Amino acid sequence: MTKQELIHEIKAKRSFLCIGLDVDLEKVPAHLLSTDDPIFEFNKAIIDATHDLTVAYKPNTAFYEAYGLKGWKSLSKTIAYLNENYPSIFTIADAKRGDIGNTSTRYAKAFFKDMSFDSVTVAPYMGSDSVEPFLAFEDKFTIMLALTSNKGGLDFQLLKDEAGMTFYEKVLATSLEWKNSEQLMYVVGATRPEYFRKIRKIVPDHFLLVPGVGAQGGDLQGVCEYGLNSNVGLLVNSSRGIIYASSKQDFANRARENALKLQQEMQVILDAKSL
Amino acid sequence: MTKQELIHEIKAKRSFLCIGLDVDLEKVPAHLLSTDDPIFEFNKAIIDATHDLTVAYKPNTAFYEAYGLKGWKSLSKTIAYLNENYPSIFTIADAKRGDIGNTSTRYAKAFFKDMSFDSVTVAPYMGSDSVEPFLAFEDKFTIMLALTSNKGGLDFQLLKDEAGMTFYEKVLATSLEWKNSEQLMYVVGATRPEYFRKIRKIVPDHFLLVPGVGAQGGDLQGVCEYGLNSNVGLLVNSSRGIIYASSKQDFANRARENALKLQQEMQVILDAKSL
Repeated sequence: MTKQELIHEIKAKRSFLCIGLDVDLEKVPAHLLSTDDPIFEFNKAIIDATHDLTVAYKPNTAFYEAYGLKGWKSLSKTIAYLNENYPSIFTIADAKRGDIGNTSTRYAKAFFKDMSFDSVTVAPYMGSDSVEPFLAFEDKFTIMLALTSNKGGLDFQLLKDEAGMTFYEKVLATSLEWKNSEQLMYVVGATRPEYFRKIRKIVPDHFLLVPGVGAQGGDLQGVCEYGLNSNVGLLVNSSRGIIYASSKQDFANRARENALKLQQEMQVILDAKSL
Repeated sequence: MTKQELIHEIKAKRSFLCIGLDVDLEKVPAHLLSTDDPIFEFNKAIIDATHDLTVAYKPNTAFYEAYGLKGWKSLSKTIAYLNENYPSIFTIADAKRGDIGNTSTRYAKAFFKDMSFDSVTVAPYMGSDSVEPFLAFEDKFTIMLALTSNKGGLDFQLLKDEAGMTFYEKVLATSLEWKNSEQLMYVVGATRPEYFRKIRKIVPDHFLLVPGVGAQGGDLQGVCEYGLNSNVGLLVNSSRGIIYASSKQDFANRARENALKLQQEMQVILDAKSL
């Protein structure tokens, strides 16, 4: 999917919502547990109930790996279902991978080619040649961790170099020099809205993937105030707040209600900015 | 496995070799390709031919993920085979994972509990709460990326903070404050032996996992000069240089020959240091 196609989808749906498909069998409604593949059945129901309100789905691979081979099968079926039924929706493998060049190439193949995700999240610690194998897939997006929303994000990302530049700012600035940098997006946590102003000075045009609205305590208005750009430029993720709205038979409808609330907030924001 | 057990194994085998099981079907001998599970058959042959010369095996998960469900099955079979037949050998899931707390817990479960690896490699970018779920497994080791051997490692790891401390040094120093820091090891690339002196000042007692000897151009003598400590404290990895010594029927014997060369070099070094 191209950036233009993603922007078109956002404007058509009046939504820049991403739904995180982080499926925990302990939270899945009991009536699904007797099915052949409860994780896939759960995802399918959530997707069918929310697809018109969201522009992206983001399964976090850890939740699937935790169930071994069965989990990987559920992930494969989920991405295949999305690509077949909702091809205009942007898909993100939230995998946070990154390794030396020939090894990153393997990860890129797994997520971009075999499973046909539109994008994958990547950790920046190992630098350019750990990220470039992902960027080599020219019709795909690479989403680099920049400023994460967790407490530990403070440990290293805000360290300043001799020139006063923080480490996450250095990651942003350096990655702009890499080839195909227009295929990059960045992860920026919603719990630090005050940083969006600084970030937009370095990457005014890039899309930012923003986890942490809802369960992690982030604030949509604060994020949008500084994070929006003239092409929207934000994908705001909610996982638990939507998919676990109910643990009963009505879970998909309740997920839709919560997704709708966020979409409506987003519509108001987009309208106010004439986007 | 405890640190003492690992040290015992090293001293008994006169080896601190780790063999990287990074299996590429394009490099596997042709006669294995007709078997049900060529990746597992390849690993099994390599393991059976080298187990008395090495103290650790390190499959890199990217090489298995690249083959989808079949690859995950091969990885599961490989770790089960190791644990059943060679339980005194240290096993490393080279996965370079790391995510927010509840998500890292999933990765830790996948590698430590379901597959029973002794250790897993972890990326430090997201800080303490992304690593602590791994450290919560008290009979396991967490191996953090510190100074990697790839070209891109220079992009960020050598940046200096206002006090002149490099980012990788900060990672080392900060992680010592985390709970269970005695269950930590660090990845330090062999291509930068001059850094081992600095690293040993910060982490004198920890084991260092050293990739990059052989194919990546690292130098065993240089690494040992500054990297060894009074309990050896090094696991030196070789992947391609051993497992792809031959692509013919004799591949396992040729792998053994190359492993033996490294083990013999290590024995000389250990003897010279009276370790």
